[in-house]
Amino acid sequence: MDFLSDFLTRFLDKLQSPTLGFLIGGMVVAAVNSRLQIPDAIYKFIVFMLLIKVGLSGGIAIRNANLAEMLLPALFAAIVGILIVFIARNTLARLPKVKTVDAIATGGLFGAVSGSTLAAGLTMLESEGMQYEAWAAALYPFMDIPALVTAIVLASIYTGKQKSLSQQESLSKQESLSKQESLSKQPVAAGGYPSEQEYPTTRQEYLSQQRGTVDTRVKIWPIVKDSLQGSALSALLLGLALGILTQPESVYESFFNPLFRGLLSILMLVMGMEAWARIGELRKVAQWYAVYAVVAPLLHGLIGFGLGMVAHYTTGFSPGGVVILSVIAASSSDISGPPTLRAGIPKANPSAYIGSSTAVGTPIALAVGIPLFIGLAQTLMGGG
Amino acid sequence: MDFLSDFLTRFLDKLQSPTLGFLIGGMVVAAVNSRLQIPDAIYKFIVFMLLIKVGLSGGIAIRNANLAEMLLPALFAAIVGILIVFIARNTLARLPKVKTVDAIATGGLFGAVSGSTLAAGLTMLESEGMQYEAWAAALYPFMDIPALVTAIVLASIYTGKQKSLSQQESLSKQESLSKQESLSKQPVAAGGYPSEQEYPTTRQEYLSQQRGTVDTRVKIWPIVKDSLQGSALSALLLGLALGILTQPESVYESFFNPLFRGLLSILMLVMGMEAWARIGELRKVAQWYAVYAVVAPLLHGLIGFGLGMVAHYTTGFSPGGVVILSVIAASSSDISGPPTLRAGIPKANPSAYIGSSTAVGTPIALAVGIPLFIGLAQTLMGGG
Amino acid sequence: MDFLSDFLTRFLDKLQSPTLGFLIGGMVVAAVNSRLQIPDAIYKFIVFMLLIKVGLSGGIAIRNANLAEMLLPALFAAIVGILIVFIARNTLARLPKVKTVDAIATGGLFGAVSGSTLAAGLTMLESEGMQYEAWAAALYPFMDIPALVTAIVLASIYTGKQKSLSQQESLSKQESLSKQESLSKQPVAAGGYPSEQEYPTTRQEYLSQQRGTVDTRVKIWPIVKDSLQGSALSALLLGLALGILTQPESVYESFFNPLFRGLLSILMLVMGMEAWARIGELRKVAQWYAVYAVVAPLLHGLIGFGLGMVAHYTTGFSPGGVVILSVIAASSSDISGPPTLRAGIPKANPSAYIGSSTAVGTPIALAVGIPLFIGLAQTLMGGG
Repeated sequence: MDFLSDFLTRFLDKLQSPTLGFLIGGMVVAAVNSRLQIPDAIYKFIVFMLLIKVGLSGGIAIRNANLAEMLLPALFAAIVGILIVFIARNTLARLPKVKTVDAIATGGLFGAVSGSTLAAGLTMLESEGMQYEAWAAALYPFMDIPALVTAIVLASIYTGKQKSLSQQESLSKQESLSKQESLSKQPVAAGGYPSEQEYPTTRQEYLSQQRGTVDTRVKIWPIVKDSLQGSALSALLLGLALGILTQPESVYESFFNPLFRGLLSILMLVMGMEAWARIGELRKVAQWYAVYAVVAPLLHGLIGFGLGMVAHYTTGFSPGGVVILSVIAASSSDISGPPTLRAGIPKANPSAYIGSSTAVGTPIALAVGIPLFIGLAQTLMGGG
Repeated sequence: MDFLSDFLTRFLDKLQSPTLGFLIGGMVVAAVNSRLQIPDAIYKFIVFMLLIKVGLSGGIAIRNANLAEMLLPALFAAIVGILIVFIARNTLARLPKVKTVDAIATGGLFGAVSGSTLAAGLTMLESEGMQYEAWAAALYPFMDIPALVTAIVLASIYTGKQKSLSQQESLSKQESLSKQESLSKQPVAAGGYPSEQEYPTTRQEYLSQQRGTVDTRVKIWPIVKDSLQGSALSALLLGLALGILTQPESVYESFFNPLFRGLLSILMLVMGMEAWARIGELRKVAQWYAVYAVVAPLLHGLIGFGLGMVAHYTTGFSPGGVVILSVIAASSSDISGPPTLRAGIPKANPSAYIGSSTAVGTPIALAVGIPLFIGLAQTLMGGG
Repeated sequence: MDFLSDFLTRFLDKLQSPTLGFLIGGMVVAAVNSRLQIPDAIYKFIVFMLLIKVGLSGGIAIRNANLAEMLLPALFAAIVGILIVFIARNTLARLPKVKTVDAIATGGLFGAVSGSTLAAGLTMLESEGMQYEAWAAALYPFMDIPALVTAIVLASIYTGKQKSLSQQESLSKQESLSKQESLSKQPVAAGGYPSEQEYPTTRQEYLSQQRGTVDTRVKIWPIVKDSLQGSALSALLLGLALGILTQPESVYESFFNPLFRGLLSILMLVMGMEAWARIGELRKVAQWYAVYAVVAPLLHGLIGFGLGMVAHYTTGFSPGGVVILSVIAASSSDISGPPTLRAGIPKANPSAYIGSSTAVGTPIALAVGIPLFIGLAQTLMGGG
């Protein structure tokens, strides 16, 4: 009981941070139909400023870091990114009125990482005085890219299979009705690791799976490239490169670092307003998305937390680092992810994945997730 | 004579402040047709930053304040706001070539409050080292909303009466000519307090007045709501709420407060440019608007100053607070007011009220009003 | 050899500055087709912030300065500005496939001054701890305006002459063929100083030359005015005026100065992205532009450096001041110049002059020029 009351005290304390205040303030502003707006140019610039700052501080730290330490957390980040998509594929996608491609795309967005959520997590860690490996922010792409790639690949396998199924159906009709029956009973998909049941029963299906795999292989590099070209990841990597290759300490200390906390508070305001504005989009799609969007960030964060603790006990990954891994696992992409998904899974309905992510997922990750993971880390590992 | 020379020295000294330098610089830049521009997104963001800062500092202070002290100044603020509209109704509206609805709308805008002028006043008070109640900035809505509501109500009563008069005229023509004569001799308006002459002489007029009142009552809430939803008031109230409910001290001290003075200087530049650009609009309307726009800010400010001094001697309202009450009385709304008026008094000509306010009223309030009120307060109450 | 190795060490050291890192980072970002963008409103505001800061610091310093010292450097600045255009007229314009008006316009743009390059130069001087006269930044218009005026005048003389030549040709055809032959042998141009050969051989040519001169005289004031109205020069002059006439020290120290270095780093990023994006335009024009754009900034800078050293030894112009004169000589206008040229020399192809300047000239001036001039000054005059 001591553990629980200790945790609850810490958790409730964190809920009153000004960062969350701005997020909730933004929701209220949008809810009362205020004409208050943060211009889009300012919003984009703030995101850039935050991510280049995160990159710069990471890059400066990496210069003196032992990068071998990064291996296990980076591997775990990639595993979490991929796992999140498969979870969506096997839970959300199977719910009534949920279209499979929409669910896969939503999983991809929840697996991808939000720079703003990461920035909020870093700020709250610093407020708490919790140490973390400066390269921990560089785990971002290791989770972001695998998640988006997995989602797009799964969706194209699924769509390819659907096509071949319908082709087959038309063929089967002319050939044999019994075959068609056995096929229609067969469950569709399960994504990537063909199980026994899914083993191709016809040469045609086998070929189309093969073709799917071949197509998929061809498409992975463009997805990776598209992710890296996204504005968020570009800003982060640019900051990392500048931090490693030049000596940006003076401009970092005099400009990027002092503005960070203030710009983040304004970004939280915008995200609150945006979340409220997107609630409407969620109503257009099945209500299961809302359930998923509430549960998923916390579940994903806890998976990240668990793997982070493994790294903590095996390689000495810091409690702050474990929180960062949980936060990027809990976050869902708000800037870079949607355009990549729109291009990669054109059949998916953006209302489904953007609505779930921006209107519910991100606020939950920010307002519940971050305090939860920090509270857990402090209680379990005493990191602060 | 000592009093006067003392006052004049203080007044002239204040005229050389950099804040006013930027205002005049903006006018010069616009006057020489420079292509220098501050992008609109930056302008809007600066206004947001200034008002949320004013709100935050007010909110932080209110937490420990005795709000009973605020009652009298808030009441005086509301009285000034309403009074300003009636003054315009009984002076400007009666001048030749001035349309009554235009005059009422102009009075409403001059009664409403400018966040930028308030911010400039606060900065100058701080430069002078004058103390003021931190909640004084929160007097803003207590003057702003009553002024806008009064203007819209007066205008709708006037327009309603005009309509019923013209209806009556057409009726009268068919009924009796004598009645019509007595009506046309009767002076129109005087706004809200029906004098003896205006007492309904016919049942029809009585009914239409009644109807006017009923309509008016129905419309007040939408006007209040529209004011509160305006971007300026929203930002101020959001800052207040965050200041009261969260602990934003760290982000306030590291971000909003240090940037305040610099952002204000840029805003002054924009307002100077804007003022010059709007001079043209004033030429489209009767020249009496220019006279009103020069005299009104100082007159309104002095009314505010007088009521503020009453509060000073009765409840100990600080000299700095008296200056703030004068400044918000002298200011005329530049951001939130115009859209509310455009919606509330659609028949009024925006060139009249925006031209008077932006091109003349605001520069006068900033460049003459603020130094005048600070100088007066220092001379009369020794507040600094 | 000591001299050379000393210089090379200093030069290479400067190449690793974060300012250049951001420039190169911007090029890389653009080269990999990243979607990262700095919104245009932010870019314009940053340029404004940098130039008003440069102006303010200059203006504050000028208040206590002996302006007689400024005379010789200002004269040299004007000479360099004019000379650069004549150099382009007599080198670039004579190269194959290069149109004369395009070459004159390009010379004008390279003679004009870039506020961003100037700001980068000032920052690097400060990092090196090199002193400079605060009014040195005020040399900007003394070079910028003469260069643009010279270019537009030369271009209009050239175009005028072309026109009168073709008119004459049609006239001559009807009058005498021998005359036409003598004319066509005559070399066109040589810009401004009519040599013996160019002495009018016909009354008509004489008249047209006269007219050209008259037209030119008439047009100079509009060009000067247009330059002064440009956003960059306006911001600089506004800052100067505010620095001289008001006391902006507090807002300068709390706002404009601390943000300078950080905003400059972001501007460098934008300029790198812009440079890469404009490379394509250079391909549309003769490759000689690329050669000119590499050589010209360094050559112009060295001319400025030489004249600056004359001022150093005669009137004690500081080594830092010599570097500033070189930097503004090496720089080519990126904001104000192009619109002035587009209006002044409408026949010139913007791809030629903007491509040369933005894609090659500015990066060379920033990345090679500034370190080169600082290294030279430190080696030759020991200024640091």
